[in-house]
Amino acid sequence: MSESNAQAESTPRTEPNAQAEEERAAFLRVANRAKEAAAVLAPLPRATKDAALHTIADALVARADEIVKANEGDVARAREAGTSEYMIDRLSLSVARIESIAAAVRQVAALPDPVGETVRGNVLPNGLELRQIRVPLGVVGIIYEGRPNVTVDAAALCLKSGNVAMLRGSSSAFDSNTALVGIMQDALRSSHPAEPQQRSTDVPPDAIQLVPGTSRESVKHLMRARGLVDVLIPRGGASLINSVVEESTVPVIETGVGNCAVYVDADADVDLAVDILVNSKTQRPSVCNAAETFLVHTDIADVFVPRALEALRAKGVTVHGDDRVRSYGDDVVTATEDDWYAEYLSLDIAARVVDTLEDAVAHIRTYGSGHTEAIVTTSQPAAKRFVALVDSAAVMVNASTRFTDGEEFGFGAEIGISTQKLHARGPMGLPELTSTKYVVVGEGHLKGV
Amino acid sequence: MSESNAQAESTPRTEPNAQAEEERAAFLRVANRAKEAAAVLAPLPRATKDAALHTIADALVARADEIVKANEGDVARAREAGTSEYMIDRLSLSVARIESIAAAVRQVAALPDPVGETVRGNVLPNGLELRQIRVPLGVVGIIYEGRPNVTVDAAALCLKSGNVAMLRGSSSAFDSNTALVGIMQDALRSSHPAEPQQRSTDVPPDAIQLVPGTSRESVKHLMRARGLVDVLIPRGGASLINSVVEESTVPVIETGVGNCAVYVDADADVDLAVDILVNSKTQRPSVCNAAETFLVHTDIADVFVPRALEALRAKGVTVHGDDRVRSYGDDVVTATEDDWYAEYLSLDIAARVVDTLEDAVAHIRTYGSGHTEAIVTTSQPAAKRFVALVDSAAVMVNASTRFTDGEEFGFGAEIGISTQKLHARGPMGLPELTSTKYVVVGEGHLKGV
Repeated sequence: MSESNAQAESTPRTEPNAQAEEERAAFLRVANRAKEAAAVLAPLPRATKDAALHTIADALVARADEIVKANEGDVARAREAGTSEYMIDRLSLSVARIESIAAAVRQVAALPDPVGETVRGNVLPNGLELRQIRVPLGVVGIIYEGRPNVTVDAAALCLKSGNVAMLRGSSSAFDSNTALVGIMQDALRSSHPAEPQQRSTDVPPDAIQLVPGTSRESVKHLMRARGLVDVLIPRGGASLINSVVEESTVPVIETGVGNCAVYVDADADVDLAVDILVNSKTQRPSVCNAAETFLVHTDIADVFVPRALEALRAKGVTVHGDDRVRSYGDDVVTATEDDWYAEYLSLDIAARVVDTLEDAVAHIRTYGSGHTEAIVTTSQPAAKRFVALVDSAAVMVNASTRFTDGEEFGFGAEIGISTQKLHARGPMGLPELTSTKYVVVGEGHLKGV
Repeated sequence: MSESNAQAESTPRTEPNAQAEEERAAFLRVANRAKEAAAVLAPLPRATKDAALHTIADALVARADEIVKANEGDVARAREAGTSEYMIDRLSLSVARIESIAAAVRQVAALPDPVGETVRGNVLPNGLELRQIRVPLGVVGIIYEGRPNVTVDAAALCLKSGNVAMLRGSSSAFDSNTALVGIMQDALRSSHPAEPQQRSTDVPPDAIQLVPGTSRESVKHLMRARGLVDVLIPRGGASLINSVVEESTVPVIETGVGNCAVYVDADADVDLAVDILVNSKTQRPSVCNAAETFLVHTDIADVFVPRALEALRAKGVTVHGDDRVRSYGDDVVTATEDDWYAEYLSLDIAARVVDTLEDAVAHIRTYGSGHTEAIVTTSQPAAKRFVALVDSAAVMVNASTRFTDGEEFGFGAEIGISTQKLHARGPMGLPELTSTKYVVVGEGHLKGV
C-alpha cells in the first residue's frame, strides 16, 4: 500500500491510475488464463496429474541453485527492513529445504485422487440413476505469508485435486515465489514440448499462477474476481482473514486462528491433566492448535492448579489468571478481558476456575475461536456432555489440542485448518478442495407424464 | 429503501438516524436471542424436534383463520399496488393452503435427523479414535420473496436440522409472515408453559425468528451479522442474489438461477430428443430447472430442428435462434447475445446449431448458470465426455432438466438449489443444512512424545 500511496502523492494523478489499470489488466489476463486452464485440468486422470507432480519435484531439485539465489535477494531485503530472525528463518530456502519441499510434492502424488469419487448414488423409484461425484472446485486463490514452501505445497495440493492455484504470497517473498512458480510452469511445459494441441490431455502450464504485482491492490483484484476465482483461502493472522472476509465477493474459507482451551473436569486424573495441559501449551506454542486458555472445575482446583502452575513454570510459561487462579501462585498475572480472547502464540496462557462444566462451555462459546477444545475427565457423562455442547471444529477427550492436524488425522497433507462451518471445518485435506456434481442417467425420462 | 429515503429528505436529520439506530438495535436483540437459542437447540434429540414440528403443524391448522385474515391485508395492499395476478396467487393463503403447509411440516418431521450422523470415523495409528459427525450450522438467515409458505417450510427444515431460522421474507408478505412466525413461536412456547428452566430440554421459542422491520436496511443488518448468523441463503432472482453476495460478510449459499441447456447430440434418438426438449421447456416454464436454451449438433440439425420447432410451436413457445436455426423456420426470432444469457422463465427458448459436442460445452461454459444441462444421445462416449466436461450442479443424460429437484432426488424436502460450488451444490436437503465437527478420543495422548 505504502508504495502506491507514496507515488500517488508525488506524481500527477493520471500516472498511478494508469499503473493501477495496467496492474488490473495484468491480473485479469492471468485470471482468465487460470480459468481456461481449470477447464482443461478438471477432467484429467490421476496418472497425468501424478506424472506432472513428479516432473515438478524433479525440476525443483534440479534448479535449486536458482531458487536459492532468488531467495537470497528476498532475505537480504528482509534483513535490511529489520525483519525478526524468526521471520527470516521462515522466509529462507536452502538446497536441503528445497529437497524436502520436493519430497512433499512426491508425497502429494502418492495420495489418492479425490476427483471422481462417488459420494452417494442410488436408483430413484422412477428408474433414474443418480450419482453425486467429486469434481474440482476450479480456480483456488490462496493468500499467505512469507513462507515460500507454501507456494509449492499449495500448488501441489491444488494440482492433485484438479484445481488451478492462484497464489498470492507475501511481497517479502516475491522473488522466491516468482522463481518457484516459473520453474513449476516450465516443468509442466516440458512435459509436452512439441505439440501445443497435446495440452488438452496433459496438465497445462497455466494451472499454476502467481498473482502479478506486490501491491495491496493485487490482493483486492483477487478478492473481487467473482466468476474467475471459485474460492479464496487466506492463510495467516486474524487481521488478514478479517479483511478478506470483509472485502471478498469470492467465497472464502477462513483458516487458522486458534484460541484453544483445555478444560479440566471435576473427575480428572490430575497427572494426565497436567501432562495434556503442558503438551497442549508448550509442545509448539507458535501454532494454531496450541492451547491458549485452561479452565478448571472448582472441585479439583485445590489439587490441580498448584500442580499445573508448577509444571507450566518449569516450562517458562506465564499464567494470566482470574482471582481464584491467582490465589494459588504469586507469579500469576491478573487476566484482563483481552487475555480471554488472546491467541498468544507464545509461552503465555489464560486461566480461570469455573463452577460447572456448563460454565466452561459458556466461556469457550464467548471467547473461543471455534478451533479445538479439550476436556480431561474420567467421567463418561461429562465427556459426552462436553462433546455435545462445545461448538468447535475439533473436540478432544483426554488428548492434547495439538492433534488437530491433517497429518495426524491421516489426511496425508493439509491446505489449512478451517474454523468456519461452511464447506469444510477442521483440517482440510484433498477432498475439501473439491465440490460435487450430480450425474443423472435416464432413458428418455420426462417429468410429470 | 424509498420509504426511509423519503423521510430523510422531509424530516430533520437526527430523526431517521434515531429510527435507523432503533431498527438496528431491534435486529441485534433478535439476532442475539437467535444465537442463544441455537446453542440450546443444537444438542436436542430427534424426538424433541419432531414433537415440536407436530405441535407447530397443529397450531397452524387450529389458527388458520388468523393467518388468512393477516394474509388478506397483505393481498389487499398488493392489489392496490397493482401487483400481477401471478404474484397475488403466490402471496395468497387459504385454509386449504395452510393445511397443505402444515402437512409439509409433518413430512419434514418424518425425515431422518441429519444431526449426529457419523460422516467418517477410524482409529488412528496412535490409538486415537477419530470421528467426524454432523452438527447444525447454527443460525441460518433466509431471504426470500412474497411466498408465505416459504416462511413455514424454511422454519421447519431449519428446526429439524437443529438450526435457528432468521427469516426475512418480502415486505409485501410481512403481516402474513408475522402471523405465521407468531403462531409457530406460540406453539413452541406451549410445549413448556410452566417452567422456563425446562427449556434446555425442549425447543426454545426463539428458534424461529422473523427479522424485524420491512426496510431494505433490515436486510443489510442480516448481511452484516457475521458472528451472529452462520450462513445466509437468498432465494430469489439474480439481482437479489448478486446484491447479497456483494454486500454480505456472512457466508452465502447462492441458489436458484437456472439458465439450463438441452444438447442434442449427433447420435440422438430424435423422438426422445423432442420429448425431452419439450418437457424441459414447457412442463413448468417458471421454475429454475426449466430449459432456456437448446443446442443441436450440425449432423442431426436437418432432421431434429424442424421436428423441434413444430413441437415447440404447438406448445406456444417462441424460439430465439441463430441463423442456422432460423433457416428451418420463418417464425424463429433472431437471437441476440442477451438471449444466450437469458433465464426467460417463460415460453421462450434460445437455440443454436453447433459443430461439435465441445462447441456445445463451450457455449454452456460461457453463457450457462451452472444449474442443470442435459445431453440426449445414444452414444456412450459422447455421454461420458459431456458429463466430464460440463461443470454444472447437475448433468442429465437422456432425461429432462426438470428432474433437478430435492423431492425427485429423494431428499424428501429442499431448502433450495445451490448453484455455487462451496459447501452444497445442487438440491439442498437436510444434510446440506449441517456442518461437521471432529471428535477425538484418547487416553492421555500427547503430541511428539
